[in-house]
Amino acid sequence: MELKVDQSKLSKALAIVSKVAASRATLPILNNVLIKVVKNKVTLTATNLDMAIIDYLPVSSSKDGEITVPARLLADFVANLPKGDIEISSKDTKVTISSSKYQSVINGSDVSDFPELPEINEKKAVIFKVPVEDFKNGVSSVKIAASNDMTRPALTGIYFNTNESVLCVAATDGYRLAEKKLISDVKSEVKAIVPASTVTEVLSSISEETEEVEILFDESQVCFRMGEIEVTSKYIDGSFPDYRKLIPENMEVDLNLKKSELLRVTKLAALFAKEVGGSIILETSKSDGVLKVSSVINEFGENTSEIEVKVSQDTKVILNSRYLLDALNVLDSEDVKVGISGNLQPIKIENKKSLDYVHIIMPLKG
Amino acid sequence: MELKVDQSKLSKALAIVSKVAASRATLPILNNVLIKVVKNKVTLTATNLDMAIIDYLPVSSSKDGEITVPARLLADFVANLPKGDIEISSKDTKVTISSSKYQSVINGSDVSDFPELPEINEKKAVIFKVPVEDFKNGVSSVKIAASNDMTRPALTGIYFNTNESVLCVAATDGYRLAEKKLISDVKSEVKAIVPASTVTEVLSSISEETEEVEILFDESQVCFRMGEIEVTSKYIDGSFPDYRKLIPENMEVDLNLKKSELLRVTKLAALFAKEVGGSIILETSKSDGVLKVSSVINEFGENTSEIEVKVSQDTKVILNSRYLLDALNVLDSEDVKVGISGNLQPIKIENKKSLDYVHIIMPLKG
Repeated sequence: MELKVDQSKLSKALAIVSKVAASRATLPILNNVLIKVVKNKVTLTATNLDMAIIDYLPVSSSKDGEITVPARLLADFVANLPKGDIEISSKDTKVTISSSKYQSVINGSDVSDFPELPEINEKKAVIFKVPVEDFKNGVSSVKIAASNDMTRPALTGIYFNTNESVLCVAATDGYRLAEKKLISDVKSEVKAIVPASTVTEVLSSISEETEEVEILFDESQVCFRMGEIEVTSKYIDGSFPDYRKLIPENMEVDLNLKKSELLRVTKLAALFAKEVGGSIILETSKSDGVLKVSSVINEFGENTSEIEVKVSQDTKVILNSRYLLDALNVLDSEDVKVGISGNLQPIKIENKKSLDYVHIIMPLKG
Repeated sequence: MELKVDQSKLSKALAIVSKVAASRATLPILNNVLIKVVKNKVTLTATNLDMAIIDYLPVSSSKDGEITVPARLLADFVANLPKGDIEISSKDTKVTISSSKYQSVINGSDVSDFPELPEINEKKAVIFKVPVEDFKNGVSSVKIAASNDMTRPALTGIYFNTNESVLCVAATDGYRLAEKKLISDVKSEVKAIVPASTVTEVLSSISEETEEVEILFDESQVCFRMGEIEVTSKYIDGSFPDYRKLIPENMEVDLNLKKSELLRVTKLAALFAKEVGGSIILETSKSDGVLKVSSVINEFGENTSEIEVKVSQDTKVILNSRYLLDALNVLDSEDVKVGISGNLQPIKIENKKSLDYVHIIMPLKG
C-alpha cells in the first residue's frame, strides 16, 4: 500500500475517525484505524463494534492495499507534522510515514484481525435529508434529556420517529422529556432508537462544509452521511415509551419569559440549592404580577428572585434546577413559553416563536 | 456591617480571593471569606493557614463591622447578578445581599472563629520591586522545575535569592533545574524558599492594571503586593541545594536552534516514547551537520527527525522528552541555545539573546 496525501486533509480526517477507535479497548485491534486504498480511493475506518466511522480521503497518488495502525498515535503524529505532502507506505505490518526531514515507522496489524464492518442495506433503507443546521439544533436540543442509565437501554437513545408526516427526534430519562420536529411532509415512516453516543459522534463529525445530513434507516442499522464521512450504527433494542401522551396540551398558567432572565434567576437559586439536591421553587402571583424563583431554605441560607410577568393565576411547583438549566441552555430563542399546572404536574417549556420544540420536566415532591 | 459596592468590582475581587478559601477544608471556617469594613475601607480576606490573600475594595458607602461568609457561594452568587450596585448587610450571622429584584440571605459565621492572619513586619522587611512582566515571565519559567514531592519540601518551593547584587529565582526537582535573573543592582540580600502554590496564587492575582509586584521578605514571611491585592505566605523551612555549582559552564557542543523546530521534533519523538517512559535520544553528527532527535525503538515503532545545524563534534544524550518539552514551552524566545556534553552530563538550555535564563536537564541512562 502506498499513498501521498496533504497533511492538513489527513490530519482532519484522522482527528474525526480516531475518536471512534477506543483507546483502551479490550480488543486491541479496535484501537486501530483501517487504511484502505482501492483504485486511488482511500478510506479511513474505525469502529468500536457498536458504531463505525468511514472517511473518504482525496489523495494525489496511491497503490492498492490495506493495513491497520494505532489510530491515536497516527493522528497525533500527523497533526504535529508540518504542512505539505505526506507519504505513507506499508510493507508487511510496518507502516512508514515520511514528510521532508521527519520519518517514522509504526508497527501496524494485519487487516484480517479487523472486525467486519456493518453495511447499510441501501435498497431497503428509508432515506431522509435534513439541512445541517436543523439537524444540529434538533438533536442537540433533545440529546440532553437522554438517560445514562444502562439498565434501561431504550432511554439512553435518541428516538427518531415519524408522526403525521413529520420526522421527530425525542429523548427522555423518565424525569424530563424533549421532542423536536425535524422535517415535515415526509413520505416514509420510521421508528428507530439510535444510541446517543452515535449521535454525539455524528455531531462532532459535521464540518463547516457539511450542508445536509442524509440519514438512512434499514432494518437493523442507521447510517448518517455528511459529505465524505459516514457513521453507521446499530439501533438500541427495545421499545421507546409512547411519549406523546405524556406531553400536556393545556397548562394552568402560561408565562412568556425572556430566556436570559429566567436563566439568571435559576442559576442564582441553584447556587443555594446544592445541599437540597438542586430543588428550587417556581411560584406565580397574580396580584403581584410576578414569577418568584427561590431555593428551598437550607443551611447555606435562602435566595429569592422575581421576574415581572403577566400571570393569569397563582400556582407553584418544585423542580430540579439542573433540569431547568439544561432545558433553557439548549433553547435557541430568547423568547420562551413556560407552562405550569400546579405542584403535581410537569412544567412545559417551549420556544415561543416556533412551536417545533417541547421540553417537559417532572415536578419534585415538596 | 453595611456596604454598597459595584457588582463587577466585587465579583472580580471575590473571584481572586475565593480561590484561596479551600472549598473542602477540614476546618470549615477556611471556606469563608472575611468581609471587614473599617471607616469606609472594605477588605476581603481568605486564608488556607499557609497563605492569606487580602483585597482592598472601593465602596460607595459603608458602615463598620465584620463577618465571614462561604466564599465560593458568595463569589458564584455575585458573579451571576446583573451589573449595578449591590448592597450587603449583616445582622448577627445572617448576611443579606440584594440587587434590584434579587435577594439572598447567606448564613455566615462569626469572625472570632476566623484564624489570625499573618502580618508582615514591614520595618524589618527587605523590599524588592519587580516590573510585572519580568515577574510573570521569570517565576513562570522556573516554576515548572519545582517538585511535587512533599517528602522533600525545600524542592517544592521557588527559591528567591540574591547573588552578586542580582535577585534570582530558581527551582529544581532533582531531575531538572531552572534559574532566572529577575533584577540586577539590588542592594539588599535575601534567601527564601516560597511555596510554589503561593507563587501560583500571586500569578493568578495579577490583573491588567498591575504594573509592578512589590515583594517584602521579613524573617518568617513573604508578602507580594499587586495594587489592591496582597498575598502573604510562610516560607518553606529547610535549605535549598547549592544549585549554582550544578550548572555547567562550558558544554562540548553548543547548538543554535529555532525553538519551534526543536519543539516539533521533540513532540514527534515523544509520541513514540510513551511506552518507554518518554525517553528520547538527541544525537549530533558533525559530518552530516544535523541534530537527530529520535525515540528509543519500542513496540509502537520508531521515529527519527533531523534538524540541520552547525555542529562542532559528535555527541549523544538520552533525555526525558517531557522535561525538554516543559523547558522549551516556557522559553520566551524563538532563538535557543542547547548545550550537550555527552551521555553522562546534563544538557543546558538557554535563551540565546538574553542569557538571564538557564535550564538544566539531567540525562537518562541509556
